[in-house]
Amino acid sequence: MQKVTASIITIGDELLIGQVVDTNSAWMSQQLNNIGVWVQHRVAVGDVRDDIWNALDEESKRSDIILITGGLGPTADDITKPLLCEYFGGKLIMHQPTLDHVTYLFEHVFKRLMPLLDRNRKQAEVPDVCTVLKNERGTAPGMLFEKDGKIFISMPGVPHEMQGIMKDHVFGLIKQRYEMPHIGHRTLLTAGQGESMLAEMIQNWEEALPGFIKLAYLPNYGMVRLRLTGSGEIDLVEHELDRQFALLKEQVKDYLVVDEDIPMHEVVGRMLKAAGKTATTAESCTGGYISHLITSVPGSSNYFYGSIVSYDNRIKENILHVKKETLQTFGAVSEETVIEMAQGVLQLMQTDYAIAVSGIMGPDGGSEEKPVGTVWIAVGNNQRIETKKLWFRFDRKRNIELTSINALNLLRIFILKTS
Amino acid sequence: MQKVTASIITIGDELLIGQVVDTNSAWMSQQLNNIGVWVQHRVAVGDVRDDIWNALDEESKRSDIILITGGLGPTADDITKPLLCEYFGGKLIMHQPTLDHVTYLFEHVFKRLMPLLDRNRKQAEVPDVCTVLKNERGTAPGMLFEKDGKIFISMPGVPHEMQGIMKDHVFGLIKQRYEMPHIGHRTLLTAGQGESMLAEMIQNWEEALPGFIKLAYLPNYGMVRLRLTGSGEIDLVEHELDRQFALLKEQVKDYLVVDEDIPMHEVVGRMLKAAGKTATTAESCTGGYISHLITSVPGSSNYFYGSIVSYDNRIKENILHVKKETLQTFGAVSEETVIEMAQGVLQLMQTDYAIAVSGIMGPDGGSEEKPVGTVWIAVGNNQRIETKKLWFRFDRKRNIELTSINALNLLRIFILKTS
Repeated sequence: MQKVTASIITIGDELLIGQVVDTNSAWMSQQLNNIGVWVQHRVAVGDVRDDIWNALDEESKRSDIILITGGLGPTADDITKPLLCEYFGGKLIMHQPTLDHVTYLFEHVFKRLMPLLDRNRKQAEVPDVCTVLKNERGTAPGMLFEKDGKIFISMPGVPHEMQGIMKDHVFGLIKQRYEMPHIGHRTLLTAGQGESMLAEMIQNWEEALPGFIKLAYLPNYGMVRLRLTGSGEIDLVEHELDRQFALLKEQVKDYLVVDEDIPMHEVVGRMLKAAGKTATTAESCTGGYISHLITSVPGSSNYFYGSIVSYDNRIKENILHVKKETLQTFGAVSEETVIEMAQGVLQLMQTDYAIAVSGIMGPDGGSEEKPVGTVWIAVGNNQRIETKKLWFRFDRKRNIELTSINALNLLRIFILKTS
Repeated sequence: MQKVTASIITIGDELLIGQVVDTNSAWMSQQLNNIGVWVQHRVAVGDVRDDIWNALDEESKRSDIILITGGLGPTADDITKPLLCEYFGGKLIMHQPTLDHVTYLFEHVFKRLMPLLDRNRKQAEVPDVCTVLKNERGTAPGMLFEKDGKIFISMPGVPHEMQGIMKDHVFGLIKQRYEMPHIGHRTLLTAGQGESMLAEMIQNWEEALPGFIKLAYLPNYGMVRLRLTGSGEIDLVEHELDRQFALLKEQVKDYLVVDEDIPMHEVVGRMLKAAGKTATTAESCTGGYISHLITSVPGSSNYFYGSIVSYDNRIKENILHVKKETLQTFGAVSEETVIEMAQGVLQLMQTDYAIAVSGIMGPDGGSEEKPVGTVWIAVGNNQRIETKKLWFRFDRKRNIELTSINALNLLRIFILKTS
């Protein structure tokens, strides 16, 4: 059994200038981790010859597998392919199956959108020292190189193309080649308690963890995920993870949301589905984000009917039937308004539960009485509505996210209490 | 004038295991680039002593400024601070102003949420060889170290805390210390033409660009941004960027969406605002995502009234007044349905324009006639509705994003044509 290590090299000026957020590395790391490969180093370099060359040198000293993404597009700012060719001592040749595939894509998939150009044809050229990994989803193929016992895999930076090549070729190839230690995880989500306080609560247990099990705290949106990771022989690791995870759950049970690594909106969705209940939202300040979160889960049509985004007060009044006097007396951001929004949307959508939110997300629109970040949330059913006032001190984007996650958490608690 | 280079070191197992997407690096890179610092290398390492130590060694050989984020939390998986202390040859001492700040935060901001614990107090301990950079937004301070002419800045990984420290301290500090070349950018957004075809169109112009101006192609969501970057003496760079940008715009004018680096939903928002017009959406498959995009822009309440997310057919029928026969005869994903959805939401919301979408986002729910990824979009006003059928071959998340951006682009074109 070997400890197999990997490095990820991401190539592209757009990363170093910050115009693109690197989501590829997270996805690759997660997937590699699942099959027992330890990603120990990630590096991003620009479209600069020496930097790419040095990264290849350095990472190959460090890791068994070097995964490279980006720098394979058809335009002039991409220099990776000729460089790889030189680095591994090959020459560029036309790869007929890839050319056929590129031609097929242009003739049958992109047909009305774009003609096949010489620079697209050139994407079928590959170094003669590589093994081609077919890219079903695009024109630039993956390329596998070997040198001094290390393997190098170059893939395009377009996320779904990279993911396709990883799934179609890379995982199988790695599993075939290496005999790896088992890596297991257990993750739970807590709400209502900070990272430090949780750490105090579980300190004795944490200190007594065996060496092959590690604990990580992952705080986000005012909630904390706790993750156990074990590495070693599969039976031992899984058994000990189960045992320690049960102990951990018991200790944090007052704050436990779910004992899986799923987001809050999926937790709420599962509860609704399991109970055969339905929900809706009436959203002002979140502008449809709660509805988006809920419907991002496949199958959400089973428990979610839809939403009214009542951004303008006219919509609150005319569609949700919030009373004019309520809006005039208490304002759009008030307990009274969110209660009437929740009642209105329950009536309109005929669902079992509803969430309603109204707030000031910033950067403007605050007052002394209701500063930016003030939010009123209502959750409930036809029998009962509960409300909560919150105040977030972040930017617009984060205020919207925090409002949404907290509103979903309030609905979760409401469902727990009333079912 | 110096060329000032930076490296970013991100610390944390959560990055290497892929449980967190690194958005910090993109933000830091963008901001540093704006003030003329060239981020040439980014590296992510786990909470592993040797890896952090080596990263400090390697990056300090490479760059003038080394920015470090993460690894400063109050819990046991964070080892960065003692390591920095050792690396720079200091010892940990209690920093009274930071302790006062931590105490203040717990007493006045977190008061009802959490008590002040010893491990929070310990966050006020800093190496005696660093300059403390106050973290207004959290408990872990920034720390500035100097060694062999290089500067090292360590910050917490929480995005808004890191951003606060950068804005409050780091940018000023860098500008004061270095005399840097000016870096300027011009970015435009195109739609309706692929990367390769654009490259063909502008090939002669691109080849004639002076050496201090670079062009990058940034394709996303089926659209392509083109970015010019110039570096050097300010007047020369800005003058030449203006000149070349005008030439570029002229050449791609048939596909030009906007000559700024703003997203599609902001382009549409600006058009509506400038014309004093209003819009709404009726969303089925996008579940509120278009509404979320539009309302993510501050001030969108000026031109956006709200949305009906009609996820369930009952909502399409009862609220949007799509005819039962239409749904039965043509199905929810059909031209006839999106037309009636658009008409219904225009009537209900009383806006000038509407977008309506219905589709199958996957992974399930497709049929031979209407495979996963099939989408019907309608855009229009009370006089006229236009429709388009699209087919996306990606995962649910990307299908939702692509549908939304394309729907917004169709509304943009409709507004252009009809105003």
